[in-house]
Amino acid sequence: MPSARTSRTTKRGGNSGELRLIPIPIADEIRPGDSIADKLVETLRRLRIRFQSGDILVVKHKIVSKAEGRLVDLATIKPSEESIAWAKQYSLDARVVELALRESRAVIRRKNGVLITETHHGFLCANSGVDVSNVNGGSHALLLPEDPDRSAANLRRALKKQTGLSTPVIITDSFGRPWREGLTEFAIGIAGMKPLRDYRGRRDSHGYKLRASVDAVADELACAAGLVCGKLNRAPACIVRGFRYEPGPGKVRDLLRPAATDLFR
Amino acid sequence: MPSARTSRTTKRGGNSGELRLIPIPIADEIRPGDSIADKLVETLRRLRIRFQSGDILVVKHKIVSKAEGRLVDLATIKPSEESIAWAKQYSLDARVVELALRESRAVIRRKNGVLITETHHGFLCANSGVDVSNVNGGSHALLLPEDPDRSAANLRRALKKQTGLSTPVIITDSFGRPWREGLTEFAIGIAGMKPLRDYRGRRDSHGYKLRASVDAVADELACAAGLVCGKLNRAPACIVRGFRYEPGPGKVRDLLRPAATDLFR
Repeated sequence: MPSARTSRTTKRGGNSGELRLIPIPIADEIRPGDSIADKLVETLRRLRIRFQSGDILVVKHKIVSKAEGRLVDLATIKPSEESIAWAKQYSLDARVVELALRESRAVIRRKNGVLITETHHGFLCANSGVDVSNVNGGSHALLLPEDPDRSAANLRRALKKQTGLSTPVIITDSFGRPWREGLTEFAIGIAGMKPLRDYRGRRDSHGYKLRASVDAVADELACAAGLVCGKLNRAPACIVRGFRYEPGPGKVRDLLRPAATDLFR
Repeated sequence: MPSARTSRTTKRGGNSGELRLIPIPIADEIRPGDSIADKLVETLRRLRIRFQSGDILVVKHKIVSKAEGRLVDLATIKPSEESIAWAKQYSLDARVVELALRESRAVIRRKNGVLITETHHGFLCANSGVDVSNVNGGSHALLLPEDPDRSAANLRRALKKQTGLSTPVIITDSFGRPWREGLTEFAIGIAGMKPLRDYRGRRDSHGYKLRASVDAVADELACAAGLVCGKLNRAPACIVRGFRYEPGPGKVRDLLRPAATDLFR
């Protein structure tokens, strides 16, 4: 039976070393309680695509959050005086500001209408990842999954039941970044693979020891997936085929720099 | 004749919407004055791969810098008292510290042996991108290209002469990031496509206007390429096939957040 281990010895996408990103368009709107695994497998069956050993599944958090019932009716949110005052100053929705603060464990910056928080999970991002686009026409907000690693592990387990394969799962969201313009995708949950690849101590083609070389492969996979899971199409997930990941019990916390060693918060 | 414009109407990788990343392994060591275009075309000919209309070429800066003679013999560098004192404190090479300072226009952070600078180009990264791994066993340092956009434009022009195609070119380097562990690839030079994709004002599948939605596609392409251009193999470049880029005279400056609007420097 195929296993995650197999992928260690699989050449990247065969002899050519190619990597393929196969979008999985899901036609249905995802509702609370839906099985993402079922939706993915149904879609793939229709497209005559099968998961293969060595594949990685990358999923945008939106469908995961929706399936987990993380939708909040904004009409039920009573913003604090503080949220109202700040929102008014920058023509923002005070209820969204309120939700962002509730979903945070620290405010990192609050300036010029931009609110950068540290979420309960430890992500540093705008508005704690609270999202009002693409959600019921603006009447609702969508929160990040409560525990995205657990969401990824659950999805991986459900997929294994259907496919027999231990496919690693990465859940992503789009964040802004210090210093650079534009959003990119980031891994916010992971199961079945290590999010970092450590080259330290290994030697390059000149025999010179590589220093400071830890690659955030889960974030690079998230970005790659972002190229086929665009904002305007309905492909909230994709298969990455041909990447030699390191199997193992990875967790997203490995990607988060502790405050003590972070020079920029 | 095929042109960049064709790609606008080309579906991503055909009907499936697939994206492919095709590594281009270059066996030769790159020397000052070498033509990267020649090396790439030779390699592709050997592998029986042809550039297609709509392809993007992503190249690690190392081979570009080497071809442009950006190698510095560390024996020729006389570090300042300041560089010597700081390097000594953290067991660093004072000559590399000196080079990093010379290549910078501002020191952003200098703490615990970490030196984050703003390069003359405007990149915020460790040690101004000065690299001593994979470079002549440590006797030399490799600097970033002087003007990576120009390098990308030159490579694009040279490739067009050989292939007849106006292939966009992205030059990349690996940088660390605030808040997150691990390095990822970033675009440091670009030619022939826009580095940002602007969704603002467009409507999602619910008719809801997308806010704050500018995607840094050039950085996502850089990350995707990083997955096939690993540190330990000899694939310093790859073709991205199937991505609907926006043709145009993009420049890397579009990706750099001005200091005035940056909350984290």
